[in-house]
Amino acid sequence: MDTPDGASVSTDDVWLAGDSDAERKFLRGYAELAVRAGANVQAGQFCVITSQVEDLPFARMVAEAAWRAGACDVQTFFFDRFDRYLLARYGADERLGRSEVAAVGLFEWLLQRRAAWVNVARDDVPAFFRPLDQHRLAEVVPRRRRQLYNELISQQRIAWTIAAPPGPQWAEAVFGSPDVARLCGVLDGICRLDQPDPVAAWHARSRELEARAALLDEHRFDALHLRGPGTDLTVGLLDGAHWSSATSTTSWGQVFIPNLPTEEVFATPDWRRTEGRVAAARPLAAQSGTALVEGMRLDFHNGRVVAAHADLGEEFLRQLLATDDGARRLGELALVTDSPITATGIPCFHQLLLDENAGSHLALGSAYTDLVEATVGLTPDQLSSRGVNQSAIHEDVVFGDSYTEVDGIHTDRTRVPILAGDNWLLT
Amino acid sequence: MDTPDGASVSTDDVWLAGDSDAERKFLRGYAELAVRAGANVQAGQFCVITSQVEDLPFARMVAEAAWRAGACDVQTFFFDRFDRYLLARYGADERLGRSEVAAVGLFEWLLQRRAAWVNVARDDVPAFFRPLDQHRLAEVVPRRRRQLYNELISQQRIAWTIAAPPGPQWAEAVFGSPDVARLCGVLDGICRLDQPDPVAAWHARSRELEARAALLDEHRFDALHLRGPGTDLTVGLLDGAHWSSATSTTSWGQVFIPNLPTEEVFATPDWRRTEGRVAAARPLAAQSGTALVEGMRLDFHNGRVVAAHADLGEEFLRQLLATDDGARRLGELALVTDSPITATGIPCFHQLLLDENAGSHLALGSAYTDLVEATVGLTPDQLSSRGVNQSAIHEDVVFGDSYTEVDGIHTDRTRVPILAGDNWLLT
Repeated sequence: MDTPDGASVSTDDVWLAGDSDAERKFLRGYAELAVRAGANVQAGQFCVITSQVEDLPFARMVAEAAWRAGACDVQTFFFDRFDRYLLARYGADERLGRSEVAAVGLFEWLLQRRAAWVNVARDDVPAFFRPLDQHRLAEVVPRRRRQLYNELISQQRIAWTIAAPPGPQWAEAVFGSPDVARLCGVLDGICRLDQPDPVAAWHARSRELEARAALLDEHRFDALHLRGPGTDLTVGLLDGAHWSSATSTTSWGQVFIPNLPTEEVFATPDWRRTEGRVAAARPLAAQSGTALVEGMRLDFHNGRVVAAHADLGEEFLRQLLATDDGARRLGELALVTDSPITATGIPCFHQLLLDENAGSHLALGSAYTDLVEATVGLTPDQLSSRGVNQSAIHEDVVFGDSYTEVDGIHTDRTRVPILAGDNWLLT
Repeated sequence: MDTPDGASVSTDDVWLAGDSDAERKFLRGYAELAVRAGANVQAGQFCVITSQVEDLPFARMVAEAAWRAGACDVQTFFFDRFDRYLLARYGADERLGRSEVAAVGLFEWLLQRRAAWVNVARDDVPAFFRPLDQHRLAEVVPRRRRQLYNELISQQRIAWTIAAPPGPQWAEAVFGSPDVARLCGVLDGICRLDQPDPVAAWHARSRELEARAALLDEHRFDALHLRGPGTDLTVGLLDGAHWSSATSTTSWGQVFIPNLPTEEVFATPDWRRTEGRVAAARPLAAQSGTALVEGMRLDFHNGRVVAAHADLGEEFLRQLLATDDGARRLGELALVTDSPITATGIPCFHQLLLDENAGSHLALGSAYTDLVEATVGLTPDQLSSRGVNQSAIHEDVVFGDSYTEVDGIHTDRTRVPILAGDNWLLT
C-alpha cells in the first residue's frame, strides 16, 4: 500500500515468505531453537508470541514449534508499527504514551500465569517513519505496556527469549543487497543450526559460558585491564557485582536463554573507576540501526568520557554522549571469545542481538541493576552514587578483536590473564 | 510460507497491496465510508479496528480514516486464522473453545467505553484449513469473545460496522480469475463511491429504507404472499415484530450503519405460518462460501420444509436442513428492490454482505430476537414456541428477481401490493 506521504510498503519489503527450501529450513530450525532452547517451553505451559505483522510467517513457525513442544495453548499477538506512525502523526500530545489496550490485557494476564514468551524482534526502521517529526515519534512509547514488561522480566515471572528472523531489509543492511538466502546461510552457523543437535549444542555452550562467569565471580577481581591497538583501559568492578551469562531462571525455577545467539559473559562496572582509552573494533549501529558510528575512540578520566572521536558519525556520537550524565559513563562490561559471529568476518550485522555477541564490549549508559547485590529499592540517584550507572541510553562499544588482551586485577594488584584475542585463558 | 501439510500461503494470496491507483482509490474510499457512514466515528471517540492479518493494508487505511474523522485514539487488533488452524490441529479438546487472551482484554475494555468499531471481514476459507478434521475445526469457537461480542451488540454498547475489502481470492470466486481491479470497479458502484458525496448518498438511501420499514410497520400485515416463477409462498408475520433497515443506534444515541452496503428491510416471521413453495433466484454460498447450492426449491407445510431439491449441492442442502429443528424453519424475511448489487448482473458474490442485499430473501434458521417485542429473557424453547425461530444456522435464500411480486395481507384478508420485480409499490 502507499502511505499518505508516498512512502510505500511493498510486498517484498514486508513479506518474508522464505523463498527457497534452504531459507524455510533455516527459519523452521531457528523457530524450533527459540522455543526449545530459548524460552524452553514446557509441556502444559501457556506460550505467547509477540511479533510485528511483517514477521507473520516466522511467528507462525514459532507458534507451531511451541505447540509441538507441548504447550497447552499458544497465542500470537501482532503489533503494527503503522499504528505507531498514525499515533505520532495524528494523536494529541497527551496520548502519545498510551499503550495498546489489547496488549495491556495480555500482559496483565501473563503476570498471573507461569508462561513462556517468544518475542520476534526486528531492528529495521519502517520507511513510513522517515517523514515524521522524529521528536514526536520518540514520544510514542507504550508506557503501561513497558511497565508491565519490566514487571514480568525483573520479577522473573516469565520465561522469555528474543528471536530476530532474517528478511530482505536486514540482508540489505548487512550485504548491500537483499540476499536473504545468504543471510540465512550465515545465521545457520551462528545459531549452531549446522550442528547435529542444535539445542544440545546451545546447552553445552551455555554451560561453558556459565563456567566462565563462575570463575570470574570466584576471582572477585577489583578491576579489568583491557589492551589492544588504541585501547589501554582500566575498568573498575563493583564490589558485589556478579558475572552473568546465557541463562536466566524464572521465579519457579524454569531455566531459559533470553538471547539466541549469546556468546558473552557480562558484569556491571563501577562507572567511577574507568580510566584510559578505548578504540572500537567494530562499527556501532546505534538506535536500532538508524545511525552508524565507525572508528570510535573514547578517552575516559575519573569514569567519564572526556574526549570522543570517530571517523564516521562523530556528530551523532557527541549527541549520544550529551543525552544525560550517564551517557558518558559505563554501564556494562562483557567478554566474548570464540564466537561464531566474529568468525563470519562480517564487520557489522546492524542487529544488536548479533553485534553485541561479536566481540568483547563495553556499554555506554544504563547498567543492569539485577547483577549487583542489594540494589532493590534504590533510586536512580542512589544507584549512580553507588557506582551503578543510570542513563536513558545503553549502546554497546565492541573493542574486542584478535589483538585484544584482558587481564583481571585483584585488590592486591596481582594480575591474571583472562583472554587474549579469541582465546579464553582464565581457568 | 509452507504449512506442515504442504498447503502454501503465497504472497499473492494474502497480501492485497492495491496494485493500481484505481484499486487504491477504491480501498481508500471504502475505508472512509466504513468510518464516516458505517461506524460513524465521532470526534473524540475511541475507535477499534479488528482485521485478519491478510487485510493489513485495508485495516491501515481504515485506521487512518478514523484518525482523520477525529477519533481520540485508534487501535487495530489483528487476528490470524493460522492460530485457529494450530488450535484445531494440536489443542486439547477442552481448549478448542478458548478465546484469545488479548481480544478478551480488548472486548472487556470496550464494554466500559462508548467506542466505535470497524470489523474488517473476509469470507474466504484459507487453504490451510482444508486438510484439517472439519469437526474439530468447527469446535474452535472463541466462546468468551463471542459472548462479549454479543453483549456489545445486543446492549447497543458500541457503534459498529462491517467492511469486506476485495482481494484476489474473492475476485477469483466471483469472476473465475483474481481480477481485483474488476471487483473494485463493480464494488465502486455498489458502495455508491461513484457518487459525488458517498456518505450523503448512504444517508439518503438509509432514509429511504427507513421510510419503507416505517410503512410496513404501519400496515401491521398479518402475512406476506410471495409469487414468482416456482414461488408461491405465504409467510406469517409475528404480532409485535418490527421491520428494520439500514441504521442502528447505540444506547447513547449514536446512529450507525452496521452493514455497508445495505439494501434490505427485514422482519422476523412467525415460523409456524409458512406455507407453499419457494424457488431460489440466486445460488446460496453457504458456510462462508465453502458450499454452493444452486437451483434450490423448498416446499413448506405448517412452517417446516417438507421437500427440498437443488440442481447443485442437494446433498449439502439436506445436511444443512438436518442441523437441528430450527434449520427447516424460517428466521428472517427481507425485502430488496432497486439494489445496485442486483444491477451488476453478477449471479453470486460469495460474500454474505453482498449476496443478501442482491434480492428479497428468506433465511432458514435463527431469527433476530431484538426485532420482536417482549422477547428479553425468554429461553430458546420459549422463543420457538412463540414463533421466533431458533437454530445453529442462519442461511439466506434469495428468491427475489424481476418476476417477483410480494403482497401484504391484513388480518381481514385484504391485500396490498408491496413490490413487483425491482419496483417498490407500497406507499
